[in-house]
Order: sequence, then structure tokens, then C-alpha cells
Amino acid sequence: MNYFDKNKISNLNDLYRINLINSCTGFKSANLIGSVDSNGNTNLAIFSSVIHLGSNPALVGFILRPKTVVRNSYDNIKEVGFFTINHINKNDVEDAHHTSAKYPKNISEFDKTDLEEEFLGGFVAPYVKSSKVKLGCKYVNEYDIKENGTVLVISSIEELHIDDQILHDDGWLKLDEVGTVAINGLDGYVETKLIGRFGYARPKISGGNKL
Amino acid sequence: MNYFDKNKISNLNDLYRINLINSCTGFKSANLIGSVDSNGNTNLAIFSSVIHLGSNPALVGFILRPKTVVRNSYDNIKEVGFFTINHINKNDVEDAHHTSAKYPKNISEFDKTDLEEEFLGGFVAPYVKSSKVKLGCKYVNEYDIKENGTVLVISSIEELHIDDQILHDDGWLKLDEVGTVAINGLDGYVETKLIGRFGYARPKISGGNKL
Repeated sequence: MNYFDKNKISNLNDLYRINLINSCTGFKSANLIGSVDSNGNTNLAIFSSVIHLGSNPALVGFILRPKTVVRNSYDNIKEVGFFTINHINKNDVEDAHHTSAKYPKNISEFDKTDLEEEFLGGFVAPYVKSSKVKLGCKYVNEYDIKENGTVLVISSIEELHIDDQILHDDGWLKLDEVGTVAINGLDGYVETKLIGRFGYARPKISGGNKL
Repeated sequence: MNYFDKNKISNLNDLYRINLINSCTGFKSANLIGSVDSNGNTNLAIFSSVIHLGSNPALVGFILRPKTVVRNSYDNIKEVGFFTINHINKNDVEDAHHTSAKYPKNISEFDKTDLEEEFLGGFVAPYVKSSKVKLGCKYVNEYDIKENGTVLVISSIEELHIDDQILHDDGWLKLDEVGTVAINGLDGYVETKLIGRFGYARPKISGGNKL
């Protein structure tokens, strides 16, 4: 095993540390956030930090980097109040990654990639047409993480579009079925294969430990 | 595509909604949190909410469910100040899932599964021996998410133990190499295979849009 203590970690060169620390928490969700400003300029950006916060009410969160960097997605979300979260599947990985390039606000990543924007129903923000799981979200609140200047943005799920093939009878989505990917570190993408689902875990009664 | 609006989501039966909403944000990290109380009682619990917060300083977060549920891990972390995060690999999935069973505080999940505890160096909290990526963490702060009573716990990375096989020259960890899994929904586990890594994305100059 390689050992890194706190001192060694802080003395690593920047790129090495970024790769290491971004890899060490395990796999991350792979989503494209679609947004629009009040002039109709659309924006699409990859996020590896979308997380589940609760089911009732249905809430999600994502982490924004410090406000010192340009953040078209955040500005649009604050301006319009609504945005979309779209799963990345393996056919779209290269284009999805490309949305991390820094384009000016008036250039849409939909025009610079083969990803197609899709407006569904009356929802104001653009979805990604090829995505198999799409969330229509509303901005709810944000928490400033004072330890490093990041921001946790909290949003409610207003609507869901789910591919027929992956929706099981009990509401569970078999994400490997349609090639939803996960992110490994800063720039690695993995495809997945289900090992199995496990039932609700109950204490084992054994060795005289009657519980 | 199946369509769920907010009203339909809130009227779903509980288990269906939990499965659906837990699946719809994409894959989640799969970690075991090892902790100990001041009497030396160890605890091991599965978490699907460990996230990367920043590299410099190296910070991670995880989400705790509302404080109304019994939370041995949280109590231990607050009491002792240190804990471990251990990647789950595919050979350990069944035992890792079993740590979600509700055992009383004086029963260690290490005694109820084949997962072995390991104390490394002077670190006070137990690691999981078979884990290929292990983080020694210190409690830093917490944020109450008032929208649903969950808590975001912020911790610093004090030390890392990384399997030799997966540490690349630039600090990136090839997590599929040793079978680190990801979580799909509430109870699904997937193995992974690398599609590829992509370079730092730069704007494309095309179609006369000179940037």
C-alpha cells in the first residue's frame, strides 16, 4: 500500500493532488446540467457532484466550485430558477466531457457538440435528447461551505422523464441497462454492470447474541 | 419515456418513490465508514453519499439522514473526532450491504460479517483490511440542511492508504482495476470498466466562431 499523510498530500504537485483526491472518494455520478438565461441562451455543463438528498420531498444537491470561477450554469439557474439534470450515457462521453471547455456565455455547448437540446412540455430549461434519465429541477436554496468556498445548491425534482427499458416494477432504475456511466477522478469514465440487488438488511442472530 | 410530475411523485407509494428517487441522480460512491467510541466499541456502516469537496485542502463530505434515526457512526465521529472511509470492492458487497442492519451500539459489524478491522499506524479509528483505498478522516464541521433535516458532514483527509496496483504516475486511481463498486439506487451494486480518460477540454474553433 502507498501511504500519504497530510503533509505529503499538501506538498504534492497540483495536478497529482487533484487527480488523487478526486479519485479517492470512489465513483461519482455523471450528469449534464442544462440551463437557459432570460434571453434564451442555452448552456450545458458536465457535473460529477449531483447527489441524492432525500425522497420525500424529492431533493437533489450539487457542489459548485468557488464563486471566483465563471459559472454560466449557476448564473442561469439563479436567473431563471429552473434547470435540468441529464444522465450521461456511454455513447455521449466524449461530447459530455467537452462541455467542460470554457466557452463564453453566448456560445451554447449544444452547438459545439453532437448533443441535441430538447424542450419537453412547458419546462423552461433544455433537456439532452439522448439522455435516458432526465430530471426537471427547481432551485430551492444554497449553503456556502466556508471551509473551501464551494457552494452546495439544493433543488427540488419537479418532473422526471425515464426510459421505459430501465424502470422496474418497484421504481428502481437499472442504470447499466442503457449505458449510464460513472466518473472516476477528474477525467475517467466507466461503464457498469449490475452485480445484484440486496434485500433490506436485518440483524443476524448468531453465537448466542439474541437481538 | 415514462413521465412523472411532482404531484405523481408525491403520490407514489413510499418504497416505489424511495427506489425511483434514489436511482435518478445516477451512480453513487460505495464506502464503509469505520468508527470507534471512547470505550473502544467499533462500528462499521455503509454510506452511498461520500463526496469530493475539494483537493487543497483535501476535504470530503457525506450526508446523514435526519437526526431522528439512531446513528452510531455519527455519535462515534463526534465523540472521537476521527473516522475512516473505505472503498467497497466486489468481493465484499454482501457483507458491506449487511452493515446497514440496525445493530445495537455494543455490537460491532466487524463481528457480524467477514469484514476485518485493521488499525494502521497511530490512527484511532478502524480501517477495513480488504479495502484497496482507505481514507483517515477528521471531523471538521457540519451543515444542517433545513429543507429535509439531513446533515452535510465535512471532514479533512488526514491520511491515505492506496493499493499499489491502481495508483498511476499522475496520481489518478484506476478504480475498476481492483473491483471498487458503485451503488445504483438504494440496494443495487455495480462493477465497472474504464471507457477512457479524456484530456483537459479546450474550446473548439470552428464554423467561423473564432474564440
